[in-house]
Amino acid sequence: MTQEIPDIIIGRLPIYLRALRHMQTQGKQTASSQELGEQVGISAAQIRKDLSQFGEFGKQGAGYNIPFLIDKLREILKINRVWEVAIVGAGDMGHALARYQGFIDRGFRVAVIFDNDAQKVGKKAGNYVIQDAANMVEKIREAGIQVAMLTVPASAAQEVADKLVEAGVKAILNYAPISLNVPAGVYVQYIDPPTHLQRMTYYL
Amino acid sequence: MTQEIPDIIIGRLPIYLRALRHMQTQGKQTASSQELGEQVGISAAQIRKDLSQFGEFGKQGAGYNIPFLIDKLREILKINRVWEVAIVGAGDMGHALARYQGFIDRGFRVAVIFDNDAQKVGKKAGNYVIQDAANMVEKIREAGIQVAMLTVPASAAQEVADKLVEAGVKAILNYAPISLNVPAGVYVQYIDPPTHLQRMTYYL
Repeated sequence: MTQEIPDIIIGRLPIYLRALRHMQTQGKQTASSQELGEQVGISAAQIRKDLSQFGEFGKQGAGYNIPFLIDKLREILKINRVWEVAIVGAGDMGHALARYQGFIDRGFRVAVIFDNDAQKVGKKAGNYVIQDAANMVEKIREAGIQVAMLTVPASAAQEVADKLVEAGVKAILNYAPISLNVPAGVYVQYIDPPTHLQRMTYYL
Repeated sequence: MTQEIPDIIIGRLPIYLRALRHMQTQGKQTASSQELGEQVGISAAQIRKDLSQFGEFGKQGAGYNIPFLIDKLREILKINRVWEVAIVGAGDMGHALARYQGFIDRGFRVAVIFDNDAQKVGKKAGNYVIQDAANMVEKIREAGIQVAMLTVPASAAQEVADKLVEAGVKAILNYAPISLNVPAGVYVQYIDPPTHLQRMTYYL
């Protein structure tokens, strides 16, 4: 059995990947752990330690080959494929996500957006026609969608999350300002601007 | 000199606070570390350890007094006051943040929104008239604003961040998909939906 890699390391891999792609667009072919570290504000030693969990990606003194490391990270993060994503909640945030152009080249494609408001169903959010949330479980299950973004009010979030789990969703990006209870094997990440701001005001 | 408390613990405090307020709205007056742990998906032992860094907040066996712990956490996170926040970038995300109702009772008030697009300046985002980013440094400095949310494209983010630092901003919530370089004493938190999604697809 492979030793489990700490989630905090997994959380840094997308940051490394994003920086490497940025360096690639600047025409760079190789990056030392120092250069990558300066990009992301993480020590070179930490980067080397993190990456060494997954194999030998750099030659001593030669730095990392950027296209190779990008490929490896995409493979490790399982985004060497495109994941279809459901958005639940067609409020301001749901609309902003439906229109966001930054998903497709990072492994995700918004496939569908749901809302339970009859005033919204049938209208558009970005290029998507808003679907009735009443059919959500069935539609997500039929489409085999495993990833969802939850942008409903806090009061509805747990109920919707339960339905997403029932529909087979395994990864939920939750914008509702509430912690979700999900069964083992389902993953939740949280985006809540005040929470992020409060983490900084502590230091001010 | 006080021992520095790990940032990962600081990051959990807003989560505890949010859950405690949720429990309070449900009419609860006390919470055991077990109950709080179930709410947030963190072990009771971890919660007790985290909170003990800041003092003695609970009596053995009696659980935490919710209003008292809420007050203490607000004090520790320095949100027993209201921080004015500048939004830079009046795109979809900037508009969504300008309209977001969840800031004020969590310690923040959007004070101003800037954009450098002449087509947008003078138009409204939520209740705010979009200001010309050309005057940003001066206006932020005059208002004494220390907190900003950055919702500009990645290509402009570092330049804008430099200006925010020049204007006296100490805390930046960065929505642009790029790591920022800021001087010591300036704090950055990142919100980047694909990064959060990639952290979960690793496990699928």
